[in-house]
Amino acid sequence: MTRLLLPPVSFRLPAAVRGLSLVLLALCATLGAPGSRASDEGNPELAGTGLTPSSLEHARQLRDRALQGTLAWDIVESLTTEVGPRLAGTEAEVRARDWALKRLRRMGFENVRVEPFEMQTWVRGHEYAAIVSPFPQPLEITALGGSVATPADGLEAELVAFDSLSALRAAPPGSLRGRIAYVGHAMQRTQDGSSYGHYGKLRREGAAVAAGKGAAGILIRSIGTDSHRFPHTGSMRYAEGVEKIPAAALSNPDADQIERILARGKPVRVRLELAPEVLGTTESGNVIAEIVGRERPEEVVIIGGHLDSWDLGTGAIDDGAGVAITTAAAKMILDAERRPRRTIRLVLWGAEEVGLLGGHAYLERHREALGQQVIGTESDFGAERIWQITAQVSEPGQKVVDQMAALLDPIGVARGSMDKAGGGPDLIPLVEAGFPSLRLVQDGRDYFDLHHTHDDTLDKIDPAALDQNVAAYVVFAWLAADSTVDFRR
Amino acid sequence: MTRLLLPPVSFRLPAAVRGLSLVLLALCATLGAPGSRASDEGNPELAGTGLTPSSLEHARQLRDRALQGTLAWDIVESLTTEVGPRLAGTEAEVRARDWALKRLRRMGFENVRVEPFEMQTWVRGHEYAAIVSPFPQPLEITALGGSVATPADGLEAELVAFDSLSALRAAPPGSLRGRIAYVGHAMQRTQDGSSYGHYGKLRREGAAVAAGKGAAGILIRSIGTDSHRFPHTGSMRYAEGVEKIPAAALSNPDADQIERILARGKPVRVRLELAPEVLGTTESGNVIAEIVGRERPEEVVIIGGHLDSWDLGTGAIDDGAGVAITTAAAKMILDAERRPRRTIRLVLWGAEEVGLLGGHAYLERHREALGQQVIGTESDFGAERIWQITAQVSEPGQKVVDQMAALLDPIGVARGSMDKAGGGPDLIPLVEAGFPSLRLVQDGRDYFDLHHTHDDTLDKIDPAALDQNVAAYVVFAWLAADSTVDFRR
Repeated sequence: MTRLLLPPVSFRLPAAVRGLSLVLLALCATLGAPGSRASDEGNPELAGTGLTPSSLEHARQLRDRALQGTLAWDIVESLTTEVGPRLAGTEAEVRARDWALKRLRRMGFENVRVEPFEMQTWVRGHEYAAIVSPFPQPLEITALGGSVATPADGLEAELVAFDSLSALRAAPPGSLRGRIAYVGHAMQRTQDGSSYGHYGKLRREGAAVAAGKGAAGILIRSIGTDSHRFPHTGSMRYAEGVEKIPAAALSNPDADQIERILARGKPVRVRLELAPEVLGTTESGNVIAEIVGRERPEEVVIIGGHLDSWDLGTGAIDDGAGVAITTAAAKMILDAERRPRRTIRLVLWGAEEVGLLGGHAYLERHREALGQQVIGTESDFGAERIWQITAQVSEPGQKVVDQMAALLDPIGVARGSMDKAGGGPDLIPLVEAGFPSLRLVQDGRDYFDLHHTHDDTLDKIDPAALDQNVAAYVVFAWLAADSTVDFRR
Repeated sequence: MTRLLLPPVSFRLPAAVRGLSLVLLALCATLGAPGSRASDEGNPELAGTGLTPSSLEHARQLRDRALQGTLAWDIVESLTTEVGPRLAGTEAEVRARDWALKRLRRMGFENVRVEPFEMQTWVRGHEYAAIVSPFPQPLEITALGGSVATPADGLEAELVAFDSLSALRAAPPGSLRGRIAYVGHAMQRTQDGSSYGHYGKLRREGAAVAAGKGAAGILIRSIGTDSHRFPHTGSMRYAEGVEKIPAAALSNPDADQIERILARGKPVRVRLELAPEVLGTTESGNVIAEIVGRERPEEVVIIGGHLDSWDLGTGAIDDGAGVAITTAAAKMILDAERRPRRTIRLVLWGAEEVGLLGGHAYLERHREALGQQVIGTESDFGAERIWQITAQVSEPGQKVVDQMAALLDPIGVARGSMDKAGGGPDLIPLVEAGFPSLRLVQDGRDYFDLHHTHDDTLDKIDPAALDQNVAAYVVFAWLAADSTVDFRR
């Protein structure tokens, strides 16, 4: 019975049409169900999944159509060109939401809306650093997101060097008084992005640890794998009861330079000027668009990417690509004029970069309908090809994932761990609340060359790789939404 | 007789020692000459060149020793780390000269000195650009070297786009009044660097052409082949009687962005802020070090690279590499304790980037001894391997070049045109005055990815490729200096 209840969201779009649609959809679902069951009988692998051979065939056709070319490139081209950088909470993110609403409505999605939330907004200001002695020269740096400013006339101090966050933690209390901590831990490439959690701790926690030792500031080697003079920004946080000190990242070549000078055994004095500001409370929001399910419209399969980006680049691989891949996949399903049983909800998350604020806001708003968020995954790891599918779902859910994996195998997606949680950053709050996990893992070997830098721009994206991603998302979204299984363990 | 005359330069180093050395060297040369001639008789290819089989064998040994590893990496590491950026005419270039004098003396070269000259010095200031409408976003730009400043409160104007310098030239007079010209000609890669002359015209002449049409400013697509958000600086010049307008380069991805927006058919308004300054007259200089010839000390073979760099990067490939390659080659010859007949003069040119000022100053100072500048070549095309040797020399000189080519063939250097002028930018004034040409052509396919950007840093250099360069320079310098031929056509 619950299947005919409306999801607890405030629809903003054609309410009358929606009411009628739902009645018609429910009717169709009732009529269609016996036929589906009949087909299931011939295929024991589909038993209990709600999927039919015709449903699988539809997924296959969508996949092949995607490989012939999709809208994804046009979408990411439009977002990165017409909006460009779109820092969470700023007027640029407002423009991104307007961009999304306009386009999603024009594409014909249902229930296109913003689910707004409030946030504290930080913006970058003037930033400059230089070696003062022994070898005066400018340094390429950028403030970490959330950093406090230096004094207005800058901070000048001697560096104390550490080769890792652990080494910084081991420094005696008070030993960094009046100094700037430098931590030079060099991130290593991984295909699945797993190094980010490990190395990224330095960016997130470094300032708090250094401040705890008395440091006046911290400079870290960028959490990035390139050797270009692009510092990588990214969010950081302070600790309760510890002084807030300015925190910035050096590009990898600049970190090399610092280390070469330190290796000469001379004290290195650095000047740091950062003037970020906190704008106070502003509005962000998740942009939502749907394909309402024909049979279980209140049950929701989530796909999406995040709409906000860091301010340095135009947010092409992070995460214009994810927005484009998932929007294009949803649009293909919409255009195929065959509705899945369940609703496909495209969520273009707001304020991901500054603490997964959109993900938390979504959970807050949909907590009561948590049981109806059946499964989902987010595309937020660049624009390269998907090479692996991982999941952590129920036994019946695994049958559906097996069908997905079989359809993705020919396009280069290997079956990975089927006991692995995680479906993308904005889904973390949901996953922690019991939401089933599935991930379409992109090849991230080059992702951290560009991530959070000025260089995250459209030219880095290969349209053919985008289309392969769309092919995978269309298979996932269609099969998850056309099935009836409970994916929850 | 002229061979015992001193070159008309003011020696600053051990004058007494020098006088004695020259006498001894002349004695040795007299004693050694008959032996050399005797050896020539057995090898008709060497007849009239002054080279002996033993001289060739020495070149071969030096070459092989270079391939086993040289000082070149240490030199470029030291220069780019301890001096860093060294813009012509600034105190940073003074530090570079001090660095060079100290190291060259410590290495044991003779006649280590600066030949100073005066110049007008330009320095970069604040620079900023953004699209104001239709899609507001910042742009990565940098002022071209020599550009005037914008008004203090910036220049805001609509763009008028051209796809090449020719198209800009074809614009009707007055048609750009109050606008900013944008020229988007995209440089293409070449192995020999020959595209630089062609595409570089836009950077050098674009402002004068645009100003002639009434433009208030000019933005060009960088003269560069990368797709990173590094704008490429480089020198430009104004024309007599034409207004001086501010000129800057956009990074390639930013130029792409501009062109995508223009393709939407909307007017593009841009804000440009440039605050460079002219410091007035300051001093630059060529740093010189020698291995005085044993037999014809007044005859000079020139090798070198330029000591100045643009201010954005640390001048690793342009031209720390050239300084390192040629200094290491000279040092190997010095350490082998066998003096060539002629003097090898290492010239670390000053103020190359801003108009070959060091090259012009050298010609001015040594014009009377022009006939004693026997041949030379400059390493100023990055740090990749040498793949070709070209020359334009006399018939007897060709015999020596043939010996060089034979020794370089096994290390991957092909014999190129033997009727091709050019030996590096700082030698242009000399070549125009009749100086024989020889070029050891580096592989420049990636050179314009880094050239004149923030990203010209040490990490881009492969030490093994540097050593191959040293091997080629050591062969050239030794054979040219141990020969007696007149290379002049």
